[in-house]
Amino acid sequence: MEMQAEAQAFFEGLQTRICDGLEAEDASARFRGDAWQRPGGGGGLSRVLVDGAIFEKAGVNFSSVHGELKPDFAASLPGDGLAFFACGVSLVLHPKSPRVPTVHANFRCLRRGATLWFGGGADLTPYYPEREDVLHFHRTWKTVCDRHDPTFHPRFKKWCDDYFYLPHRGETRGIGGIFFDQLPSAHFAFVRDAADSFLDAYLPIVRRRKEEGWGERERQFQLLRRGRYVEFNLLYDRGTMFGLKTDGRTESILMSLPPLVRWEYDAQFPAGSREAELPSWLKPRDWLGEG
Amino acid sequence: MEMQAEAQAFFEGLQTRICDGLEAEDASARFRGDAWQRPGGGGGLSRVLVDGAIFEKAGVNFSSVHGELKPDFAASLPGDGLAFFACGVSLVLHPKSPRVPTVHANFRCLRRGATLWFGGGADLTPYYPEREDVLHFHRTWKTVCDRHDPTFHPRFKKWCDDYFYLPHRGETRGIGGIFFDQLPSAHFAFVRDAADSFLDAYLPIVRRRKEEGWGERERQFQLLRRGRYVEFNLLYDRGTMFGLKTDGRTESILMSLPPLVRWEYDAQFPAGSREAELPSWLKPRDWLGEG
Repeated sequence: MEMQAEAQAFFEGLQTRICDGLEAEDASARFRGDAWQRPGGGGGLSRVLVDGAIFEKAGVNFSSVHGELKPDFAASLPGDGLAFFACGVSLVLHPKSPRVPTVHANFRCLRRGATLWFGGGADLTPYYPEREDVLHFHRTWKTVCDRHDPTFHPRFKKWCDDYFYLPHRGETRGIGGIFFDQLPSAHFAFVRDAADSFLDAYLPIVRRRKEEGWGERERQFQLLRRGRYVEFNLLYDRGTMFGLKTDGRTESILMSLPPLVRWEYDAQFPAGSREAELPSWLKPRDWLGEG
Repeated sequence: MEMQAEAQAFFEGLQTRICDGLEAEDASARFRGDAWQRPGGGGGLSRVLVDGAIFEKAGVNFSSVHGELKPDFAASLPGDGLAFFACGVSLVLHPKSPRVPTVHANFRCLRRGATLWFGGGADLTPYYPEREDVLHFHRTWKTVCDRHDPTFHPRFKKWCDDYFYLPHRGETRGIGGIFFDQLPSAHFAFVRDAADSFLDAYLPIVRRRKEEGWGERERQFQLLRRGRYVEFNLLYDRGTMFGLKTDGRTESILMSLPPLVRWEYDAQFPAGSREAELPSWLKPRDWLGEG
């Protein structure tokens, strides 16, 4: 139980550090916080910033919940029995500018019965990808991983490509990052290091792109591509499922959804346009190895 | 196989009749059609009307597909073996005016091995519900059902309430209608009658509401509520799942999604406003029995 308490304290602090870092970047708006209780046990603090200069909607959730798993769902998890504890930070940032990528990160601790493990990751979803941004994102995670275990980055990078995949679109959600699950509790130091590297992985990209110009064309493309984000989260995302199946707080779980989204039947883009080129970025690629 | 061919011809004609009826109502725009082939067998005709005076997006799909079911999915269906055939019309109409309800209908014939059955239904999703519209919609379906079997309407009305339910929101999708599945082939006459009653169930409501005024407040509420529509279709709808799991055409399956959608964290409305009142309409109720 000691590690559980330590993890909880770490994740609470993480939420504060990340929100502080984002507010320092987007000085025009502030996070508001909603503390909530889960009827079955535990609760959380949902923090959301809307209509900032940089972020149209930024949601950073902390939650620490416990209780009884439903038996059919428990069967899909390690450990034994129905008693569970889950604690972590989950965030999705939807920038206003189509030049700035959307980003998601999640770091969490789970326990079923006596078995405690960690999971998490971060992935980047650009609308108009830039090679140097993609390399920066992957390089940050590789550096963090390599500090702890040389096998982590190749495994967690591939896991991310596999996980954030939309079969019905034949595309990954974005350009990847890292994803890991069921990591033994001995790796808590890695989880701390990765979680505290999130701002370093993302903010330099924001700073590079936030002043770039864009217009209605780019905005419409962003709204359309945000539709794929919604499709992934509602059709495939295990975190969303976990939340909904454990009677999580709906508004906090669906805080990840973009503020405004468009669907257009069979949208097509001129060959050679940056819009038509995007899908070619959305395949698993060895970005750092390509040189 | 005779009934299968008959059903296919009926559904092809149904698509034409419904599109003709909608074009007659929304004279400012026309359906465009996309014929497509399914690699595993069969194909369809997707017809979509966008930016009409009444309909922001109206999608009316005809499809007739056949092939091999995946074994795990086959196990959830009647009949035997992996060979399947599925044919029908599926439509979702998203009006521009928040005063005009969104509507969905679907009528289909399925066969697995030697077992053929029908399914279908229609449900109405108003943003600013009016009692006379709700009564008209339910009364139309009750009249059709009662012509064929007095047990149909109570069963199919309840099935609709049960099916179009969002557990994570504690709400039905709309004010209901009818829903039925695994109806033996002997009831083809009922299916024809119901399918050809769709325009009678819906168009009188459109005619009553289309001239009513609305502004930015109503529009924003409509966009927000459309989010629930997306949540239902991607989280729970079996038709969407069936399509995606049988390698259906993604653009045709997701044609049901609204053209523009908004998500707002924990949106609240003033007590007594029509917006705050909507959830009280979204509970199973005996509309026709309430007098």
